[in-house]
Formats: sequence, C-alpha cells, structure tokens
Amino acid sequence: MKKKGKSIKEIAKLSGVSTATISRVINDKGGYTKETKQRILDIIRENNYEINSIAKSLRVSKSDTIGIIVPDISNEFFSTLIKKIESYFFNENYTTIICNTDYNEEKESEYLKILENKMVDGLIIISGQKEFSTEFLRKKIPVVCVDRKPIKNDDVVFIESDHYNGGFLATEKLIKEACKNILIIINRSFLSSSQYRLSGYKKALNKYNMDFKRENMLILDINNSKVKNSKEAVLKKYEDGITFDGIFATNDQLAIGAMEAVSELNLRIPQDVKIIGFDNDSFSKYTNPPLTTIHQNHDLIVERTCKSLIQMINGENTEKYQNIPVKLIKRKSI
Amino acid sequence: MKKKGKSIKEIAKLSGVSTATISRVINDKGGYTKETKQRILDIIRENNYEINSIAKSLRVSKSDTIGIIVPDISNEFFSTLIKKIESYFFNENYTTIICNTDYNEEKESEYLKILENKMVDGLIIISGQKEFSTEFLRKKIPVVCVDRKPIKNDDVVFIESDHYNGGFLATEKLIKEACKNILIIINRSFLSSSQYRLSGYKKALNKYNMDFKRENMLILDINNSKVKNSKEAVLKKYEDGITFDGIFATNDQLAIGAMEAVSELNLRIPQDVKIIGFDNDSFSKYTNPPLTTIHQNHDLIVERTCKSLIQMINGENTEKYQNIPVKLIKRKSI
Repeated sequence: MKKKGKSIKEIAKLSGVSTATISRVINDKGGYTKETKQRILDIIRENNYEINSIAKSLRVSKSDTIGIIVPDISNEFFSTLIKKIESYFFNENYTTIICNTDYNEEKESEYLKILENKMVDGLIIISGQKEFSTEFLRKKIPVVCVDRKPIKNDDVVFIESDHYNGGFLATEKLIKEACKNILIIINRSFLSSSQYRLSGYKKALNKYNMDFKRENMLILDINNSKVKNSKEAVLKKYEDGITFDGIFATNDQLAIGAMEAVSELNLRIPQDVKIIGFDNDSFSKYTNPPLTTIHQNHDLIVERTCKSLIQMINGENTEKYQNIPVKLIKRKSI
Repeated sequence: MKKKGKSIKEIAKLSGVSTATISRVINDKGGYTKETKQRILDIIRENNYEINSIAKSLRVSKSDTIGIIVPDISNEFFSTLIKKIESYFFNENYTTIICNTDYNEEKESEYLKILENKMVDGLIIISGQKEFSTEFLRKKIPVVCVDRKPIKNDDVVFIESDHYNGGFLATEKLIKEACKNILIIINRSFLSSSQYRLSGYKKALNKYNMDFKRENMLILDINNSKVKNSKEAVLKKYEDGITFDGIFATNDQLAIGAMEAVSELNLRIPQDVKIIGFDNDSFSKYTNPPLTTIHQNHDLIVERTCKSLIQMINGENTEKYQNIPVKLIKRKSI
C-alpha cells in the first residue's frame, strides 16, 4: 500500500495535480482536460511507472464508496449532515452508504464489519456511544469522527462543534438577562458533546460568581420521547420545590419539553422563565414563543469532514482535530 | 432457485414452521428451540433432502442485507420509517444499508447498481421520482415500494397510506367547519401520493357541491425551503385578490408556511382562516396554534413493508397492493 501511495504521489508531484486527479485519469473517470490527461500519461511513461499495476491496485483497493455510521437517522441535526455529506461525495464521484445503529453497541460493531466487507474507502462516524475505537476494524481505513471523540489514533480525524463555547454562550446570555437560578437539561450525558456543553455552563456560572448547584442538573439519558421526558423532569423539579428563572436545554427537543412544562405551571416565557436550546432545529423558530438557541455550522462541519476524509484516502496529511465555531441565535424565549 | 424454494417450502410444511425458521436452522442462526431444530433436521434426513446443497445455495444467494433507497433522509416521515425498518430487520437477523438520492434520477440508478453489487437480498424503495421501474435492476430481486407506484411488475409489492382518504378527510373537515374557499398547497406534484391527496380534496368539494377552482391550487415543486416558499405562495394569492378561509397543506412544513403567511396578514387562526396539514410531524403539536393534521400509521406501514419483503425473500406469496388507513388529528388550527 505504502509503495503504491508513494508512486501516485510522485506522479502527482511531477504533474502538478492532485493524487485524486491521477486516480481519475488512471481509472478513466473524467473531470480533467485532455491536456492534463496527456501530461499525466506522459509522465507515467517517461518515468517507467507501470500504469497497469497502479491501475490494478487502485481498482482493487478502491470501491469509491464511503460508509457512514449514525446512531439516530431521525435526529434532524444528524440527517441534515448526512444529506449534505452524501451530496458532497457524489460530486466527487463517491457514493455513500448509511447505517443506523440506534445507539446500540452490538449494532455498531455489526455495521462496521459490514461496511468493511463492502470495501468502503473511508468511514464517517457521527456521534454514537462513548469514545470511538478503531479496534473493531480489521484493517486500516481512514476514519473521520464527527461529534465523537476517538481513542487516540493517528488514522482518525475528529471534527466537532465548539460545544463548550455553545454551553458557555447560552448560560452567559441567561445570566446577562438577569436569571439567578438556571436549570440545565441533558440527555445522553455519556456523549463528549454533552459533557462539553455542561462544562461551558459551569464555566459561565463560575465567571459570574454563581454557584453550580447539583439539584439544577436534569439528566435524562433516555432513547425516546425527549419532549415528554424533559417536560416531566422540569415539572418534577418544580414539585420538589426547586425554583428557577432560566433553563439551558442542551438540545431543542428538550427545550420544547421545558416550554411545555413552564406553560403548564402558568409561568410566562420569557417574563418568568427564559429558555435557550441547542442545535437550531428547523422547528425551533416556529415554537411559541420562537426559541433562542445555539446554531451549529452544518456547512462547515460537512466541508471539513469530507475534505479531510478525501485527503486521508489520498494519503495526504490532514489536521487531526478541528473545532467548528457556534453562534447564539436570539429569538423571543429570552 | 425455484427448486430450492420448493424444497424449503416442503420441509416447512412437513415441520409445521415457517420457511424463515428452516433457513435459520440450516444457517445455524438461533431463534428456535432445540426441539424445533431437531424436528427439522430429522425431517430433512428422513426425506433425503441434501442439507448441504440447500445450505450452500442459501449461503451463496443470501447476504442477509436489505437495501433502502430514499429521496430525502432529512424528511422526518421518511427517516422515522427507516429507523423502524432497520430495527425490525435487525431483530430478524438482517442488516440494512441506506442510500439517499436527493430526488435525483442519476443518483437513484447509481445507488440501485451499488446495492445490487453489494448483493442485497431485497430492496425497499421509499417515495422518490415518478413510477418505479425494475428495469434498472439487472437481476430479479424482491422489491417493496412505499409511497411510490411501481410500473406493474409481479416482483414488486406496493404499500402506501390512504392518501386519497387523507385528502378527503382534511377537506371535508374544513367544509364542516364552514370554510367556503379552501386553498390546497402541493409540493412534488409528480408524486402519486400528491396526486391522491389532490383527488381526495376534489372529491370532498364535489360531495358538498362546492366548485373546484384552479386558482385555489398552489403548486410549488421545489427542493428546499418548503416553509418559506409556502408562505410566499400564500401571500401571493392574497395579493392577487384570492380570498380564502381554509387551507389544506399537503404536508406539515407547507402548513407552517401557510400559518406564517396568515399571521403576517394579521388574520387569526382558526377564527379567520382554518389550516390542516398532513403527516403529523413531531413538531406539529408545538406550533402556534397546534396544527390539525392527517396522521399516517408508521408502525403499520413498517410492519407490512418488512413482513412482505421477508415473505418475498423466502419465496412466499404476499399481497401485491396494501393500503394503510390514515386518521385526522384534531388540534387548534381549525
């Protein structure tokens, strides 16, 4: 593998084009000018590279297919990413196959096996369980993890939104709007993204000299009915005598549950309780009142993910950790 | 193939279990009692069936993988179906791979090729373009179409919600609530589901002796920004001097756009304009006011789809056309 990669790289260097273009020329895939093609073929001949063996090794080792592993295809944030990733790769002559794991470890390892057997050229792992380990893979294959921390491994790129700053921005905004008792609602607390959002919340409290109170944390860790469970958890806190004037819900569905609870308690949003969500789901601007939330930059996440994976497939270097900025979208729930 | 199918069927008949169980026993997959296994193996021996050749043919022809083709993975109705389909098949020892086609014919035929090459045992085609044709498939493979009419073919099962009755129920409800001028908003008018919903609308008007007016039809046929485009289309109708007191939006996102337009016109929902959507998306109960909509029965669609495909894979007969009832969910937008 290394030798082949080197040959292609050398040809690329001599021809002044990318290794992807070399691969396309050798495989007769189009997407380059006649002149480029001729130049590359000349260089290959001049340097006595064996085009057939290169072509053969490329054909054998490349399926032009990317595999995506996702825990919940019905989560809008994930499905939007996947749709854009598929589109990006299709324009680069790759097809994409998607597997849904239901946050289930057994399924995940089964689907990793299947994608390996289907000879995918690269893998994208979106969120899921705890840290991602390549030990489930039998061979070396380029992997990009999105919103999921990999166990340290040089073959894995890790791309995530700045969840920490998102948690900080949301909480700071509530504090600046004069909230004194801010609940935080978390689902899937085992995810690194959840942990970072919580850390951002604590950081903001700390910055403004407010105490972090354990009883202000609502941890759900459920698979379904996020809205309903969030609503019930907030009502329970109220019954338990916990008073609050601000809620940071670490995703928009949890925020909707919180809004329902607050309405049921005959409290007003935002006059009595201010609420901020996370993700900027498409429905968040249509809630009553429209939800203030933290926006993740889908387009940039997708671009970085796809570019990095293609670089890895072509044996090029790529940044191993990439942190994507978030921003607060102000609407009427604060 | 036929001969093999027949053998398995005979064994199944003699053992009093399904062909799926026979297949599991031969492939040592579990999910049956020791007694069942022994009984089946005895019957195979007694009848001189060659277990190895059966097993071999099963193993060669089966990948235990199902392929799903979907036009838009970020559409909540589709992604919810897929999630449930995956779960059903995983419990039946099948894995599922999903391909997103972006309503693009080129992509669709590419992905069909890929799924064939990956040797899937069966295909599920969810919605998409115009009628589905098996001519893109090079070999016979069981296919279930969901919400997409197949060109008549004995190897294809067609399962859909009763879109016609859904359109009828929505329109009839608006009429019974005293609406005199009812707009209908349609996206992707080329889909059979859209056509049926429109027919149901016309049928209801006809039943109550109301004229069908072409100017009351808003046809969008766009790929993105359904909410925004729907809103603008309704505002345009109003500017054009079309008056209306009811809107049937053929999906919930279009309904939200309509709600936005009505609010912007300073009309009240439901006092001045009544609105009904379609799909019962999860956000529809959180709009302001909560949206009345037509509910499609996900669970039944999924059950019928998966059962039918497994029956076809096992060479059993299955109903070729299955129509799934819908119901109206009354909320405060009427």
